[in-house]
Amino acid sequence: MRYTTIRTDWGTTAGRVDGEHVVHLPFADVGDMLASGPDWRALTDVADDGSAARTALVEADFAPLVPRPEKIFCVGANYADHALEVGLPLPKYPALFAKFSRSLIGARDDLVLPPESNAVDWEAELGVVIGQTTRRVDEAQAAEAIAGYTIVNDVSMRDWQLRTSQFLQGKTFEASTPVGPFLVTPDELDHQSGLKLGCSVDGIVMQEAVTSDLVFSVAHIIAYISRFVTLVPGDLIATGTPAGVGGARRPPVYLGAGQVLRTWVDGLGEQVNRCLPTPEEA
Amino acid sequence: MRYTTIRTDWGTTAGRVDGEHVVHLPFADVGDMLASGPDWRALTDVADDGSAARTALVEADFAPLVPRPEKIFCVGANYADHALEVGLPLPKYPALFAKFSRSLIGARDDLVLPPESNAVDWEAELGVVIGQTTRRVDEAQAAEAIAGYTIVNDVSMRDWQLRTSQFLQGKTFEASTPVGPFLVTPDELDHQSGLKLGCSVDGIVMQEAVTSDLVFSVAHIIAYISRFVTLVPGDLIATGTPAGVGGARRPPVYLGAGQVLRTWVDGLGEQVNRCLPTPEEA
Repeated sequence: MRYTTIRTDWGTTAGRVDGEHVVHLPFADVGDMLASGPDWRALTDVADDGSAARTALVEADFAPLVPRPEKIFCVGANYADHALEVGLPLPKYPALFAKFSRSLIGARDDLVLPPESNAVDWEAELGVVIGQTTRRVDEAQAAEAIAGYTIVNDVSMRDWQLRTSQFLQGKTFEASTPVGPFLVTPDELDHQSGLKLGCSVDGIVMQEAVTSDLVFSVAHIIAYISRFVTLVPGDLIATGTPAGVGGARRPPVYLGAGQVLRTWVDGLGEQVNRCLPTPEEA
Repeated sequence: MRYTTIRTDWGTTAGRVDGEHVVHLPFADVGDMLASGPDWRALTDVADDGSAARTALVEADFAPLVPRPEKIFCVGANYADHALEVGLPLPKYPALFAKFSRSLIGARDDLVLPPESNAVDWEAELGVVIGQTTRRVDEAQAAEAIAGYTIVNDVSMRDWQLRTSQFLQGKTFEASTPVGPFLVTPDELDHQSGLKLGCSVDGIVMQEAVTSDLVFSVAHIIAYISRFVTLVPGDLIATGTPAGVGGARRPPVYLGAGQVLRTWVDGLGEQVNRCLPTPEEA
């Protein structure tokens, strides 16, 4: 099953992708759908009798897949090649940092480059959305908690990220992190088989890797987090980025106004985000 | 003015402290009150005609002052003596990390020590709650955004905090961070004059400092954060802790079951949190 959150004239709606259409569901967004209770899957997996509103997929205006997760966890240095390029040791434990929901944008939204940063960088990642309340679970139970997968580009303002030891300020800039377009349920996607992911800037491939190279598996990360806090439906985990970020290049390369950032994961579609200057500068 | 969030038989309510009573207000909590709009102050500063429900202050069951802030920012190494004791340089920029709202507890709640950590430590802090939507402001405007002050004990699981470079996992343990009991508005409290703050364990004073020793002022921190993200009513900022944490002692000292952690800031009341083992161990 494949879900999405799209904008309509009267606000956002969750939808189920049926062929070339998004069939609207009675939830404001995918987060709202997942929070409706353990039956969300059965409730939304019903044959369409044609009475539901629908939007052609080619005309869909994607909102952030989960616009207001209670928690967003990001995993640092979770591909060996990226740990190497930024000079970090391969972690013994998952290195976790946060984002707040105000940083999220939709999969085709413009990425407005903030005047406060001169080092806006890309980080293509496999995203995981939680589907059930999860606390102190083992890895097998953790796998059951996965509602589905999506794409996250953990766009990072490197100058701010590296001002102090704590990454948060460079990771939670307003409206900077595309999430979506789709939530694809685990039965349709075996990420452990090694899905290709990557991103490009103006058509030049910058990152390319396979998800089977993750240092800590998705189930491991969920089980690990669940030891200290309760994960709830709609929570988002960005599982880490592979080598190829702009800040690790010599000389560094960052996103500029007018460029197009494209991010993909096999089976999850793609994000296309045009970089724009802030309106004051335009 | 002095506000609080208390638990009642039918859920939580915001309240205004009038003498020895909490006069109930028509909001579920102080966060809800602040989010009601720019008139929250005028709406809640009305003479009590005796018709509102009230609770004797001595019987109040304090909930987390703001139970579900959209964002919780904590400032690291913001007192010179604490930076020194943990071997951190005095920061050039505020070092910011996050907590999630599930970590919050009330000012008199039991602090249940998680079996996952052997190093539960204290961090007495001045807390600041945001009262209006704030983006890209200078320090004078930032001061206007302060709804009020409160006490935060940024209880930290040092073993988890220091597993990786990123503090988050040791800072956002479920139900570990007391916030409250009161929100005191800025007209009643001049924290720049140097309020004494501190905490004790079983009556032994562990931390003692004055808020005038903050490296980065409250207004500076708010203005700084507002450069990268919008602060909204109810957002909570823990402004950093002074010297005296348990992990910096030789040998280290951590909280144990049965101990009582007491935290105070001049003019803001005090927190009293009894440390308990997890029920499975009790």
